Amino acid sequence: MNNVNITEELSFSRIIQGFWRLADWKMTNAELVTFMEQCIEVGVTTFDHADIYGDYTCERIFGEALSLKPSLRDEIQIVTKCGIKLPSVNYPDRKVIHYDSSKPHIIESAEQSLRNLQTDYIDVLLLHRPDYLMDPEEIAEAFSVLKKDGKVRSFGVSNFTPSQVAMLQSYVDAPLVTNQIELSAMRTDNMENGTLDFMMQHRMAPMIWSPLAGGRIFHEQTEQAIRLRTTLERIGAEIGAQSLDQLMYAWLLRHPANLMPICGTGKMERVKSAVDALKLHMSQEQWYDVLESSKGYHVP
Amino acid sequence: MNNVNITEELSFSRIIQGFWRLADWKMTNAELVTFMEQCIEVGVTTFDHADIYGDYTCERIFGEALSLKPSLRDEIQIVTKCGIKLPSVNYPDRKVIHYDSSKPHIIESAEQSLRNLQTDYIDVLLLHRPDYLMDPEEIAEAFSVLKKDGKVRSFGVSNFTPSQVAMLQSYVDAPLVTNQIELSAMRTDNMENGTLDFMMQHRMAPMIWSPLAGGRIFHEQTEQAIRLRTTLERIGAEIGAQSLDQLMYAWLLRHPANLMPICGTGKMERVKSAVDALKLHMSQEQWYDVLESSKGYHVP
Amino acid sequence: MNNVNITEELSFSRIIQGFWRLADWKMTNAELVTFMEQCIEVGVTTFDHADIYGDYTCERIFGEALSLKPSLRDEIQIVTKCGIKLPSVNYPDRKVIHYDSSKPHIIESAEQSLRNLQTDYIDVLLLHRPDYLMDPEEIAEAFSVLKKDGKVRSFGVSNFTPSQVAMLQSYVDAPLVTNQIELSAMRTDNMENGTLDFMMQHRMAPMIWSPLAGGRIFHEQTEQAIRLRTTLERIGAEIGAQSLDQLMYAWLLRHPANLMPICGTGKMERVKSAVDALKLHMSQEQWYDVLESSKGYHVP
Repeated sequence: MNNVNITEELSFSRIIQGFWRLADWKMTNAELVTFMEQCIEVGVTTFDHADIYGDYTCERIFGEALSLKPSLRDEIQIVTKCGIKLPSVNYPDRKVIHYDSSKPHIIESAEQSLRNLQTDYIDVLLLHRPDYLMDPEEIAEAFSVLKKDGKVRSFGVSNFTPSQVAMLQSYVDAPLVTNQIELSAMRTDNMENGTLDFMMQHRMAPMIWSPLAGGRIFHEQTEQAIRLRTTLERIGAEIGAQSLDQLMYAWLLRHPANLMPICGTGKMERVKSAVDALKLHMSQEQWYDVLESSKGYHVP
Repeated sequence: MNNVNITEELSFSRIIQGFWRLADWKMTNAELVTFMEQCIEVGVTTFDHADIYGDYTCERIFGEALSLKPSLRDEIQIVTKCGIKLPSVNYPDRKVIHYDSSKPHIIESAEQSLRNLQTDYIDVLLLHRPDYLMDPEEIAEAFSVLKKDGKVRSFGVSNFTPSQVAMLQSYVDAPLVTNQIELSAMRTDNMENGTLDFMMQHRMAPMIWSPLAGGRIFHEQTEQAIRLRTTLERIGAEIGAQSLDQLMYAWLLRHPANLMPICGTGKMERVKSAVDALKLHMSQEQWYDVLESSKGYHVP
Repeated sequence: MNNVNITEELSFSRIIQGFWRLADWKMTNAELVTFMEQCIEVGVTTFDHADIYGDYTCERIFGEALSLKPSLRDEIQIVTKCGIKLPSVNYPDRKVIHYDSSKPHIIESAEQSLRNLQTDYIDVLLLHRPDYLMDPEEIAEAFSVLKKDGKVRSFGVSNFTPSQVAMLQSYVDAPLVTNQIELSAMRTDNMENGTLDFMMQHRMAPMIWSPLAGGRIFHEQTEQAIRLRTTLERIGAEIGAQSLDQLMYAWLLRHPANLMPICGTGKMERVKSAVDALKLHMSQEQWYDVLESSKGYHVP
């Protein structure tokens, strides 16, 4: 698999494994170690987390498995996120979901992630959502402290608009190395509103969440989903794809911006299927056929 | 009160007094002098005008009062605006409202403002609205002449989008020091469309008009206004606010961009109430509670 | 006619003649030569083409006429475009319209345009539409090859957003000299969404397509068109315009960004009428009257 250079010292696997639903997979620690090893074997070495996943449990489950085989740490890149404060049984005082990108919260959240993940460092820490109240000077200070202490190697953002990235970057010394955004053949906004353009202009590597539109591609009975499935099935037959989801990955991987889709499954055969999407070749015309089926009209 | 640095030589008070409705206040010149002195006493030293306010009368009313006590001039900062041409009994030839940012109009308008305000200089002159026909080279020349002649110290804009500011700034030597924009808990667009991000990125201090949504917060019977009042009243009780409007100011003042709300009242107790909003502390969660009540949904 | 400087060596005529509908004009080669000569005579020296116009036939028709009088080549500037792949009887394998800005396609398309137009060089080659899959490094290479070989002198884009221009420009050495965009009194989006601001900021000269809204201004029975015609007729009488279309041109020419409208007619008297629009003087107020009639509301 071609890796994607994130910084001079860091590269990500083109397909990223996400642990958003880890708590639902009901794996034993040993099973989870095996899953990680199988991911690494097929070249999927970058693992995506967030403090809040599984109502603040997924990082801990992952860390417990990793502690069984700590040598895996050197073979993987860990991304995690901070900045959302979720009402939760774990935080009974919280009444409404809100964001917090204050210096103390970023530092405490990153340190809690280190404990949960049972690791000494996070490869890339992301601000999970653009905080209306983000104070870029405070964020810059928090990043600086975490980097100096060796706790976080690089920083990025998630779901940020271009103007939010540009604003924050103007205060933060280190480059914001990625923006994790939603993108799929069912949801192309970020290809049209300047978000992806801005990342290409500034050589930021895009991490992609919901590459399968949250699974909607498989069963949704909207006109869009039906049109899109019909086209994907036809093109799948033309280029030898094994499944709808593989086509959805192939469509993203065809884009020149080195998109890195995050695979959210706990089933190894689905991860492999995503990896095998890298071998498919979709023509420019087939790619547009998918796009136009998604939109329901032809490009002008 | 913490002042906000606008340039190396100029700072604004965090709460700005606006004279949009001055003609309606029916103050005698002596009463207006007293009002100015009381504003200055509580730290409100920046006064916002426009040529067109009160159908071209407010600047003149203000100037007549100021001429009674010219020593006040050194204690205040005067902002005024130009560029809108309003149909008016004073300009019977005008048929439709339009903008004019030609060099002659900017210079003549600023000179008329000086005469009306009975002062030798304007601290900051703003282009009131983005003129579709603005010729940035002409504007740059007009600004340059006014600055060289000591008539205007700094320049800014109002209701400009980021691309309009960037375009104009690329022609104008002196920094555009502010953009006066609409913002309130009822009207958050400029926090979401990149306008505020751009100003933070470029270290422009934002002046805020309609911080109380033109008074709609007090009486409007829309679902939004009702939801928002309910939340503001609850949070007001939690943090010890005296009134709805004070909460509305506190919500803006909590933002890290050093927002400078413009207070439009002629009642000194309302000005004081706005100033006292600076002492309130709203938590991140309370701030988001207000935001989400305004929107009617939770942040993702 | 004031020409518009595009590069140090190249200038365009303020009114550009478009050959989009050339195939419909049913001119003999001799008639077309005469039409070109008449255009040149009134100062319209820049001619706009695209590979796809007339289902891939217009460039060829033009080239056949030009070959009758090759000396005209030095008196004109030829713009053409590439990057759209149209389903066509000429390309029976194509199933859906799509874009292609791969290096081989750009080079082959430009070379085919040279053969069709029977000329040795294209003055400016435009990417016709923003390709979702544009690989800016490939585009930069294609442009570089074409320029080195003397086949194309300068490059530009068409229908690009600011973020797309900024992204592409960050990879391409030579300046993108123009962005051909839609604009008219009936369709003002590009004056409001930042596209024109961005071009002014970066000193790109805008080519304007559909200055007459595709002819809708003449006959459309929408409220907008009726309002606009009423105002244009009134103002036309005030400033001595000869026709509705001349007013539509005058409205564009009044803008300070040096807009270059593309005239799509094959009738010489209509071209002359567009050129004569340059002599009309529309006041700021008249210009806004047209704008506000188009929108159906007054500016704030």
